[in-house]
Amino acid sequence: MAYRETEKMRNRKAEARKRIIECTHECVAEGGFRSAQITRIAACAGVATGTIYRHFESKEDLFAEIFRIATQREVNRVAEALATEGDPVVRLETALRQFAERALRGPVMAWALIAEPVDPKVEEERLKFRRAYAELFEQAIRESIEEDSLPVQDARQSSTCVVGAIAESLVGPLSPAQAEGADQADKNDHDPLVDSIICFCMQGLTGTRR
Amino acid sequence: MAYRETEKMRNRKAEARKRIIECTHECVAEGGFRSAQITRIAACAGVATGTIYRHFESKEDLFAEIFRIATQREVNRVAEALATEGDPVVRLETALRQFAERALRGPVMAWALIAEPVDPKVEEERLKFRRAYAELFEQAIRESIEEDSLPVQDARQSSTCVVGAIAESLVGPLSPAQAEGADQADKNDHDPLVDSIICFCMQGLTGTRR
Repeated sequence: MAYRETEKMRNRKAEARKRIIECTHECVAEGGFRSAQITRIAACAGVATGTIYRHFESKEDLFAEIFRIATQREVNRVAEALATEGDPVVRLETALRQFAERALRGPVMAWALIAEPVDPKVEEERLKFRRAYAELFEQAIRESIEEDSLPVQDARQSSTCVVGAIAESLVGPLSPAQAEGADQADKNDHDPLVDSIICFCMQGLTGTRR
Repeated sequence: MAYRETEKMRNRKAEARKRIIECTHECVAEGGFRSAQITRIAACAGVATGTIYRHFESKEDLFAEIFRIATQREVNRVAEALATEGDPVVRLETALRQFAERALRGPVMAWALIAEPVDPKVEEERLKFRRAYAELFEQAIRESIEEDSLPVQDARQSSTCVVGAIAESLVGPLSPAQAEGADQADKNDHDPLVDSIICFCMQGLTGTRR
């Protein structure tokens, strides 16, 4: 009986942790990390604020966890897009385009993940994930060079430039001030922006006018 | 007499503020924002820690001020490099190269300004200054397009890509872990890195293989 009780408690604890994570994710997706207040998260998850601190040492640790989960999802999407068949340069371009388009379709969450000023603890996760993206692109660039689809270049360096160019380009369009205006406009009207980001990056990689 | 006294006090206050700023700058240049402790700054400036908070509402406000001063200096350097005579594309390339080389020569300060995880208040300044850099490059790109030195492109968008590509490329080499190793090596041995950053950016802008 004692064992069953413990298991039940463990399950309940895991359930609460899951709800806290889901509710924090929701709050961040609605208004960024800044708007994700512990009291709001607790109310949404149906727990006391103190319960949150039994699961996470601090708000920053909770935010870092949310950041990791949400960003890993995006990293996986890029990995999937790069893992398809066909010309490696086309795959690379498709993956870059998808990344930018996904960000612009979910601007609040993308802003939170890419550019929102956050606590240093979360910022450290951001630096790590930038490397994760760059490593994926690096692998694709390396393959493209091996197949003579891209000129010889420092693949690591080029992938870093690509990640920086895309992320920086999205900062403005995703920022809350600009995104509010964009909400009124056609959500699919981002193509010229994505086109010029991709154009710059592909020219940077290929050295060929597009 | 009362007036003179007030002026003397005002001068002394301005002096203290100046010393606090200089000492904070020194601390940041030595070990980044993380190592700039208020007690250390106070000791260096020869004031009580409480005096610092009479000049700056919080540590974050003081850091934001240091960030603004130090970054404005770099922005001015870029503006100077762009304001010279001659082919606008050459000026652009020179300015980009100088920016990267200056950062690598002062890696701790450059890390603090470009990539160190910092308080959101400082991070907000960083976002503003990234725009300031981009606007300078945008102007140079626009001039280059007008003079037919660069193909027609969205100058604002391209300049943003350039700033992102350079900043992201410097994150790794400037990060404290990597920079420590680099200190042992030849300080001037950064050329291949700078070359590939510039190559990517110039190819992105020109669409011509370098």
